[in-house]
Formats: sequence, C-alpha cells, structure tokens
Amino acid sequence: MRLAVIPGDGIGPEVVTEALKVLAEVVPNAEITKYDLGAARWHSTGELLPESVLGELRQHDAILLGAVGDPSVPSGILERGLLLRLRFELDHHVNLRPGRLYPGVRGPLVDPGDVDLLVVREGTEGPYAGNGGLLRKDTEQEIATEVSVNTAFGVRRVVADAFARAQERPRKHLTLVHKTNVLEHAGSLWSRIVEEESLQHPEVTVAYSHVDAATIHLVTDPSRFDVIVTDNLFGDIITDLVAAVTGGIGLAASGNLDITRRNPSMFEPVHGSAPDIAGQSLADPTAAVLSVALLLDHLGEKEATRRIEASVAFDLATRDQNSPGSTQGIGDRLAALVSSNARQAS
Amino acid sequence: MRLAVIPGDGIGPEVVTEALKVLAEVVPNAEITKYDLGAARWHSTGELLPESVLGELRQHDAILLGAVGDPSVPSGILERGLLLRLRFELDHHVNLRPGRLYPGVRGPLVDPGDVDLLVVREGTEGPYAGNGGLLRKDTEQEIATEVSVNTAFGVRRVVADAFARAQERPRKHLTLVHKTNVLEHAGSLWSRIVEEESLQHPEVTVAYSHVDAATIHLVTDPSRFDVIVTDNLFGDIITDLVAAVTGGIGLAASGNLDITRRNPSMFEPVHGSAPDIAGQSLADPTAAVLSVALLLDHLGEKEATRRIEASVAFDLATRDQNSPGSTQGIGDRLAALVSSNARQAS
Ligand SMILES: CC(C)[C@H](C(=O)O)[C@@H](O)C(=O)O
Ligand SMILES: CC(C)[C@H](C(=O)O)[C@@H](O)C(=O)O
Repeated sequence: MRLAVIPGDGIGPEVVTEALKVLAEVVPNAEITKYDLGAARWHSTGELLPESVLGELRQHDAILLGAVGDPSVPSGILERGLLLRLRFELDHHVNLRPGRLYPGVRGPLVDPGDVDLLVVREGTEGPYAGNGGLLRKDTEQEIATEVSVNTAFGVRRVVADAFARAQERPRKHLTLVHKTNVLEHAGSLWSRIVEEESLQHPEVTVAYSHVDAATIHLVTDPSRFDVIVTDNLFGDIITDLVAAVTGGIGLAASGNLDITRRNPSMFEPVHGSAPDIAGQSLADPTAAVLSVALLLDHLGEKEATRRIEASVAFDLATRDQNSPGSTQGIGDRLAALVSSNARQAS
Repeated sequence: MRLAVIPGDGIGPEVVTEALKVLAEVVPNAEITKYDLGAARWHSTGELLPESVLGELRQHDAILLGAVGDPSVPSGILERGLLLRLRFELDHHVNLRPGRLYPGVRGPLVDPGDVDLLVVREGTEGPYAGNGGLLRKDTEQEIATEVSVNTAFGVRRVVADAFARAQERPRKHLTLVHKTNVLEHAGSLWSRIVEEESLQHPEVTVAYSHVDAATIHLVTDPSRFDVIVTDNLFGDIITDLVAAVTGGIGLAASGNLDITRRNPSMFEPVHGSAPDIAGQSLADPTAAVLSVALLLDHLGEKEATRRIEASVAFDLATRDQNSPGSTQGIGDRLAALVSSNARQAS
C-alpha cells in the first residue's frame, strides 16, 4: 500500500501523526511518502502544488491530508491553489462525509435521536467550478459573478454513486438536497437525474429537501436522513452542520473519491488547520483516524476499517467527554485499542 | 395607513386573520385591501402577479403576506412568479430576519445562551438573480448554469443598512457571512465593501465567518452573533437555521424592505404554506403577528411595535409549550394582551 501524506498546516501534522500511528497497527508495512505542501512551502518558494508533485501524488494508492491554511496566507490562496486544485486535478467527484452520532458523544442537541447518515457531496463542479469574474473593479459599477456549472455527466456520476450507497444501507433512503424552487436550471437537472437514476434502484426510497429546510431538519430531526446527495456548495454547508450535530468537527471524517480509480482518492478530516490551538496537543485526532478508516475501506481493507471504527466507537463511549486527553494521548489510546482489537479477532 | 394583504395559500390565510386581529388593537382604522394571489388564482386564471395588481400594490404603505405555495402547483412557479417577483419588482433589497430566543421558548439546543441576533439578507441579486440556463437539455451533454450576480450598488446598500442597524444595537457587532475562500470574485466584492463601510462606522466591530462555519456557530454558540449581513442564498439558508435554533419557524418573522421607501415594503412569516396542517387551526400565528410588529416598526409606529412585541414575549413565557393553543386561540390571546397592554400604557 503506497500512501502519500500531506500533513499541511496548523494542527494538520499533529493529527496526521496520530492517524499514522493507528494505521501502523493495521497495515504495518504501508509505504508512506510525506509531501510538504501548505503555508510554509508557499512562503519559502511561492509554490502551491507543483506539477512534479502532482505527478508523484498520482503514483500512490491514496492520499491522507491533515489540513491546510494559515492566517499568514491570504484567504483563498491555499484553499483554491492547493486543496481544491487537488480535488479537481484528481477528479474527486464523490466527496463522502458520514455523520454518525456515536454512543456517549454529547452533541449540541437536546434530542438528536439516532443519527447515522452519509452525505454524498459532488466535488468537481457547481459553484466551485471557479467560473466567474469581476467587471469594473473598484468602481461603483463593479459587478462580481460566480457561475455554478452543473453537467449531466458530473451530476449523474455522483447521483448514481449515492444511489448505490443507499442501496447497501439498511434504510435504503436517499434525499436530494437542493434549492430547486429558486435555482431553476441546476435544480431541474439535478431533479431529473435523481428521478432517472431512481429507476435503476427501485428499492431505494427518494425524498427531496430544500437546503434551507434541510438545516432545520438537521437540528430538529436529523435521524430522518439516511443518504443525502447534494451539490458542492450545499454539501459544504450542510456537512459542517452535520459535523456539529454529531459532536463537532473533531470527529468528522471525509473522503474525496475518484470512483473510477483513475486517480488516488484523498482522505481528510473535515476540520481546518485551527491555528489557534496548533502546537499545543489540544486537537482531537479522531477525525483524522476515522479518515484513515475511510481510506482503508476505499482500498478494500474492510477488516482493518472495522477494527478502527470499533476502536473509535469504544473510545468515544468511554472517554471523559470534558477532557478526552491530549492529541497524542488520544492517538495512543486508539492505537492500543486497535492493536488489542486485532489480538481478540485473531 | 393603507395596507395590502396577500393571505396566499395553505395556512397563510389562517395566520393572516390572527395577525390582522392583533393589528386592529393597535391601529383600529387601518385601511386594508386583500389580494387573492396564489395557487387558487393561478389554477383558475393562470395569473401569478398581473401588472394591474402590481400597480395597485404599489399604492399601499406596506404589504402583509401570509404564505404562498401548494402541492398542486409545480415547484418554483409561485415562488419565482409571485413571491420572488414581488421582492424584485418592489426592490426589496433588505431582507430583515431577527432571531431571538424568547424566555420560555424551548429550542432544540441544550445550551443556546442568550440569542438575540438580526440577519440582514440581501434580497434582489446574488444567486436569486435568475441568470442561468440549460444547454443541450435532456442529453448526456446537458449543462445547467446558475449565475450569482453581485453589484457594488446592491452589496453596498445592504451592507450600509446592516452597519446602521448594528450601530443602533447595544453590542454594535457585525458579522459578514460568505464563502470568500471559494467564491473569489463575489467574496472579494463583499469583503471590500464591508471594509469600506466599516470606516463610516468606527464603533461597530466587524467579524467574518464562512457560511459553513457559521452553521456550526449557530448551533454551538449562537449568542456570539449580533447583526449578520450576507447574500441572498446564504441568507436564505442560515435564517431557516436561525429560526430552528430560536424555537422554530412558527415564531420567525421577516421584512422585505425597500429602504428608499419608493416601494411598499412587504412583511411575511418565514414559514411556508404548510399544506399538511392547513385548515386545522394548528398553525402558530405568532410569526405573522411578529411580522406585523416589523411592519409597524418600519412605518414608524414604534409604540405599537413595542406593545405587540411585549405581548408576544409575555405569551411565549407563559404559554404551555406543548399545547400552545389553536391558531385562533393564540391570536385571541395575543389580541387581548395587546389590548390590555394598551390600557396599562395609557
Ligand atoms: C477549505 C474549503 C475550501 C473547503 C470547502 O469549501 O470545500 C472546506 O470547507 C471543506 O468543506 O472541505
Ligand atoms: C419560498 C422561497 C422562494 C423563499 C426564498 O428562498 O427566499 C423562502 O425560502 C424564504 O426564505 O423566504
């Protein structure tokens, strides 16, 4: 297993260290190559993602990314030039973001119910396409546009994937989240494709929710959702809300998948680089560890995935929620659990 | 005071009846004209908003709208052809949506803190501009676009208004909510204008939050917000979440303002027509009543506004949260409170 690791900025390197510690328990002989992309490299060389590095990344089975972003870099530079560039260059069209409220985890809701959902966010088009511009900049006649680009090709492949995933889950329920009553054209394309693909999956029940209403449901009745499929921007917004509802971004994992497997998929915690707590061993590495579980699942290592997830579930159910431990402490605990989980299984 | 009233569909007429009952207690001689726009008119005549009706609406001091929308009408027809058309034709550029967690109200959060915020949502451009289209419809090469249009003119007027409102509030704090790290062009325009306008309001402290992070803050620490200014779509999304956090859309009021006063402003509960509970006296008219309070405030009737808001606050603090009463029952109670509130004041 050849893995590229991009520790990145802020708490990125800290959580990645713990995630790799856990990985070593299940795949001791993974071949790991680190890439120093992020704020420091940009400051020293002006580089964000050199072609040569992109070429090397393509030679790996998967990529693990910590987090990128630093207050010393103008907003957007690293996001668009590195993170989004990776997602677009490597055709990460399925952005997978599970939202599970683990037993023992205290979220912000009085009565969350049993939350176990999966957001399938489109990752390579929509308002993230980077189409748009400024006209008459710095005058009172300035106009700024942003074009959401939605293609039948791009929508169909993510919708088909979401149906396939819904089909595999006990509830077999899929919700399209969009804003079809206002975004007429994109809404029409998404709705038609969901309808068409549903014919291939007669067992999957289909629902629709406007994105504004979805935010209400996510705080009043999140257990109604099973699989959600949505566009790049709506997916960005609701997955942060899902993360909050299921205990915070310290626990939220994600995968950026090229489901054709032409390019390596990339796994990353949903959280950012959190410069305010960086270097203090305060970050929870659980999201990074769960991202490793998603990575292993994608590479077909189902048993390793199961072991990591079971260990995280056990730790979350038993840890002191008020002081879960240092970054390293949590990582050590999870690694030990995964290791003993292995011994039990064998 | 000449008021146009559009009761609309579903629970719209029910909540409007109660809102007008309360209005009658504070402005007994308001001249009220009802307009039967909505699903029924569209079915019988095909009309959504005839020019003649639009012309008549313009002759009023303000408009009160219940809700529009019915399952018998294809999604988007009434929204775009009636509701959004009113907002755009009447240049409702400031969409005002207060979010206050009243004492006694149980929201979905364990620990909401003291929530009293105001969202100032842009109402006449952004992704709502209706710019976009379909190419190669119904083929596998189909492309759907939606263009978010942001003008210096449109952004400046709403940002200036938000600063002016923040200036009048005790905390004098303004948060721009956007997604500047991805929506580079629109984000740049919004950020620059907020920076420029802040020079006119040195007392107002300014913060920025990405829209995804804002959804987290709204469920983990909503009391951090005072005034939020944001674009049309982000405003749509977060105000539903704000409504949920502050006790539900049964309580959320809104105003669509033309702050130049060239056109009448329009006031409406944030909730929709809720066809599932229509005709059963199950709808909470409080949001419609609070919309009347916003209407009176806009028309300079500060004392009447204060009386209605105090009555709603009293009722919310004392009502049985599990069975607050029928639509008519709540309306009667609020009207009686407003009336006695008047007697006390005089
Ligand atoms: C950092 C940013 C570009 C990114 C996004 O908007 O996708 C992040 O919010 C996420 O959700 O992974
Ligand atoms: C009904 C719909 C067009 C409308 C909007 O998107 O603005 C509604 O959600 C609202 O928030 O008033």
